[in-house]
Amino acid sequence: MTRNATSPAIFILTLSCPNRPGIVAAISQQLYELGANITEAQQFDDTDSNRFFMRIVFEVTATDNIGQGLRTQITRIADTFSMEWSLTDTQHRQKVLLLVSRFDHCLVDLLYRWRIGELPIDPVGIISNHPRETFADLDFYGIPFHYLPVTKETKAAQEEQIWTIFNDTGAELAVLARYMQVLSNAMASRLSGRCINIHHSFLPGFKGARPYHQAFSRGVKLIGATAHYVTSDLDEGPIIEQDVERISHADSPDDLIRKGRDIERRVLARGVRFHIERRALMNGSKTIVFTP
Amino acid sequence: MTRNATSPAIFILTLSCPNRPGIVAAISQQLYELGANITEAQQFDDTDSNRFFMRIVFEVTATDNIGQGLRTQITRIADTFSMEWSLTDTQHRQKVLLLVSRFDHCLVDLLYRWRIGELPIDPVGIISNHPRETFADLDFYGIPFHYLPVTKETKAAQEEQIWTIFNDTGAELAVLARYMQVLSNAMASRLSGRCINIHHSFLPGFKGARPYHQAFSRGVKLIGATAHYVTSDLDEGPIIEQDVERISHADSPDDLIRKGRDIERRVLARGVRFHIERRALMNGSKTIVFTP
Amino acid sequence: MTRNATSPAIFILTLSCPNRPGIVAAISQQLYELGANITEAQQFDDTDSNRFFMRIVFEVTATDNIGQGLRTQITRIADTFSMEWSLTDTQHRQKVLLLVSRFDHCLVDLLYRWRIGELPIDPVGIISNHPRETFADLDFYGIPFHYLPVTKETKAAQEEQIWTIFNDTGAELAVLARYMQVLSNAMASRLSGRCINIHHSFLPGFKGARPYHQAFSRGVKLIGATAHYVTSDLDEGPIIEQDVERISHADSPDDLIRKGRDIERRVLARGVRFHIERRALMNGSKTIVFTP
Amino acid sequence: MTRNATSPAIFILTLSCPNRPGIVAAISQQLYELGANITEAQQFDDTDSNRFFMRIVFEVTATDNIGQGLRTQITRIADTFSMEWSLTDTQHRQKVLLLVSRFDHCLVDLLYRWRIGELPIDPVGIISNHPRETFADLDFYGIPFHYLPVTKETKAAQEEQIWTIFNDTGAELAVLARYMQVLSNAMASRLSGRCINIHHSFLPGFKGARPYHQAFSRGVKLIGATAHYVTSDLDEGPIIEQDVERISHADSPDDLIRKGRDIERRVLARGVRFHIERRALMNGSKTIVFTP
Repeated sequence: MTRNATSPAIFILTLSCPNRPGIVAAISQQLYELGANITEAQQFDDTDSNRFFMRIVFEVTATDNIGQGLRTQITRIADTFSMEWSLTDTQHRQKVLLLVSRFDHCLVDLLYRWRIGELPIDPVGIISNHPRETFADLDFYGIPFHYLPVTKETKAAQEEQIWTIFNDTGAELAVLARYMQVLSNAMASRLSGRCINIHHSFLPGFKGARPYHQAFSRGVKLIGATAHYVTSDLDEGPIIEQDVERISHADSPDDLIRKGRDIERRVLARGVRFHIERRALMNGSKTIVFTP
Repeated sequence: MTRNATSPAIFILTLSCPNRPGIVAAISQQLYELGANITEAQQFDDTDSNRFFMRIVFEVTATDNIGQGLRTQITRIADTFSMEWSLTDTQHRQKVLLLVSRFDHCLVDLLYRWRIGELPIDPVGIISNHPRETFADLDFYGIPFHYLPVTKETKAAQEEQIWTIFNDTGAELAVLARYMQVLSNAMASRLSGRCINIHHSFLPGFKGARPYHQAFSRGVKLIGATAHYVTSDLDEGPIIEQDVERISHADSPDDLIRKGRDIERRVLARGVRFHIERRALMNGSKTIVFTP
Repeated sequence: MTRNATSPAIFILTLSCPNRPGIVAAISQQLYELGANITEAQQFDDTDSNRFFMRIVFEVTATDNIGQGLRTQITRIADTFSMEWSLTDTQHRQKVLLLVSRFDHCLVDLLYRWRIGELPIDPVGIISNHPRETFADLDFYGIPFHYLPVTKETKAAQEEQIWTIFNDTGAELAVLARYMQVLSNAMASRLSGRCINIHHSFLPGFKGARPYHQAFSRGVKLIGATAHYVTSDLDEGPIIEQDVERISHADSPDDLIRKGRDIERRVLARGVRFHIERRALMNGSKTIVFTP
Repeated sequence: MTRNATSPAIFILTLSCPNRPGIVAAISQQLYELGANITEAQQFDDTDSNRFFMRIVFEVTATDNIGQGLRTQITRIADTFSMEWSLTDTQHRQKVLLLVSRFDHCLVDLLYRWRIGELPIDPVGIISNHPRETFADLDFYGIPFHYLPVTKETKAAQEEQIWTIFNDTGAELAVLARYMQVLSNAMASRLSGRCINIHHSFLPGFKGARPYHQAFSRGVKLIGATAHYVTSDLDEGPIIEQDVERISHADSPDDLIRKGRDIERRVLARGVRFHIERRALMNGSKTIVFTP
């Protein structure tokens, strides 16, 4: 996207810091002085951790190096309040690496949303532990595909390959779109806050393998899916989004899997969108999600 | 309710038996010969257990002892197929015993639904381990109240008192309307299939104590409640009904408890209604629920 | 699909007739005599119209011409009760004609469900009033594509072409997957009960054009979509399925359109599935939907 | 509630004004200078009307006349930006007048939420066009009850009586808890922004009388309820909250009315809570609702 000369630049600023009076005043005064018009703002005080979180969307006149200029100014104020912060130019499409195993419904869904312009990402690669033939029916629209098979013995080496691709492509986010390999602690740490998984169940109800079969044998009346940031414990990362659908005694495990596909793809898509729009902020074992 | 001379009697027949061809034919032929008009029917074949479940609502001309006559005929056919069955005259209001601890939102809700005629039950008693003063603001409309305090030492004796009241009142169903005492295995067995609990969480996610605090600390995005038949494992009985509501990072544990009250009361009310209308049938560790 | 020699044939029988005692007995006795094992059955008495509706799934030993044999027997009993009925061999994949205009999310979704085997249909053609280039990114997997542009003047002729394709392909169902042309009364009549539309709004709230913009300007808090059988009044056909999602004041019309796409595709997919599984029966201006 | 000497005072400031840069900076700077700590803040720019809306929750040290002091300071800044604004001391329980006709489920529900401390209101009166005997089973806990029957002829006079009670009690909000009389334009204008109605349907789908019967005859698959601010057009006021439940062909109009009661009471309770917490702001024919 080329910014139109006359249209303003739109940035998203997210920040968190120890809570104390004056943060909002300082930030909004600073933005005002920079000529910014705040169009959206949400904040949250976590009274447990006494930490403050904020997301601000603002418009400024687009000039050369506007981003660099903003960063310099924000750094000053951020230092005063010991802030962790990020500034995102909404014109920039985030580079996303997609990982998938055999089931492709989440992958297909994300690619569709990208293709029609709904999800403003730049897919820089697709990695699978299954070969290209597994996806013979799929058009990847020129996105590089990497077949990286994995066994217990080769896991470390395979993850190193993923890490190399992540870095070489300049990926900013890895999406585990039904990638059924548990990342090692080391790999999860490297990708901390930059890797979203879709867990095919309503966590924390049914962790582990074959959650829909667990749900069936337990006779629950609702099944769900969970999008979460990846941490070293695959099923315990900070939850970004969840959703459920009603089931009945007449639904077989296969029916649950089918219904699950629908839930998984919409939950993952929402989770990725929240991340891309900088609405999801990690907060220890939880998240802040500033929904619209 | 007195049956109007000219209006038909309406019965609900539920049954289960080992599956084999001819069950529906035999039952429907029998009902036809009895002059019955089937108005609703649902069935389910559990292919895992090879067991057949059915619920039939039918109208017959009301005569003296119609129920007894029907029972005699159905017994014959039931024996042929080794059926477990029950026949319910919808004119009969089932006698229900309500148990409650300190939080009264489910109790108040059930009493309201009964009072306006929405829930066709006959409440024969209210039991609490808290004294009448706990419910000083509540009108029990003449329903006998029993204060049965309980300690670890007196648990067995207190449950014996509950059991005596259950039998003396002719109660057909016990509803644990936020009764926060775990029933003993012995008591749970006695009430098997005749006791419904509301678990203030979305099972099996958050078993045990303070589930809303668990949900808060885990950062889930949906909370729920579960109505289930009581078995010796309080949190593992066959699930009848569940529902959820969306929450956010901004909801405190108190907010979850507040939202939980709304979910709990509607889920319990649905669970009780399904039982009263004979829509919920126990099937091992699960239920069949023939929803409308 | 070739039926395995040893596996049974599975049929779905749906029927409706004036209500009177003995229907279930007669049908189930007949099926029993034919050696059928009923695996699912649901019925509904419409007390307003005094009409009876039933759906029965049964297994029989697969023999040559089993379908023909069953039809002969069922015809006898159907005549007795003045039944309208249909018998579907579940081995048979119903031939489906897909119609689409410019927005392809429902089309893509249905094709995906078909391709992975989730939706057991046989797509016999795709018709659009937009040229093949509109769908340049889409692989139609060999399904014939027909570009049938339409203007007010050519509408009658274009519909005649659709009708010809429908018949020539042996199509049993037409799905308007965001096909934005209103069918003429004549065409709607021809396809009565064999044509499903997705209306991109929660009917009857927002009929007519640009429903998401209507929803936005009215400030509603939920938006939805509706799958319905097509009748001469495009927005008034019998509703098969509906669903909603929550929106807020912060959602722009474009956000509503985006969220709407998700609702539309899952509602249409469910509607088509209900039809294919013979769960949806037309009942005047309404439907019976025997959900699992 | 008496404020504890050591606990801070918590205020909610809501405001709206023509959008322009610097509003947030000015407000947050002002609050900072007043020693306030902002604990929640949400804002919305209506790009259609170019109007800015904000809700801020802040803590300040409690002193005598703190509210008056704040008002003086805020007035200054409000004048600069041509703001409409309100400042609410959360210690103050808003005085609420409840109006009801024959169906009492919403009234009973609101009273229950008030009684257990969930809804921090001060009910100053209950008005009905039906006599006290209609609610013979209800304990009004000392809240004055006013029987104000109404006919077409006496409507103006009866509304004058309501208006007098509203003013004499110092009521700040009137809740039409299934009060089935359409307010005159004059009365609706007087109560503008201070009167919430529960419409027993999903608007705008089924306006007018007997919406559940309309829903039944139309065969919809979801029914809902709508809480909205009252305007001269009863069914067109700005919507605050809506919710739905799934229904089926097997639900009779009576079933819809029963399910509707559950939806109505939770939607109205949420709507009242949003208003009390100053989360709902009117915006022409729509609302801003700053949900948690």
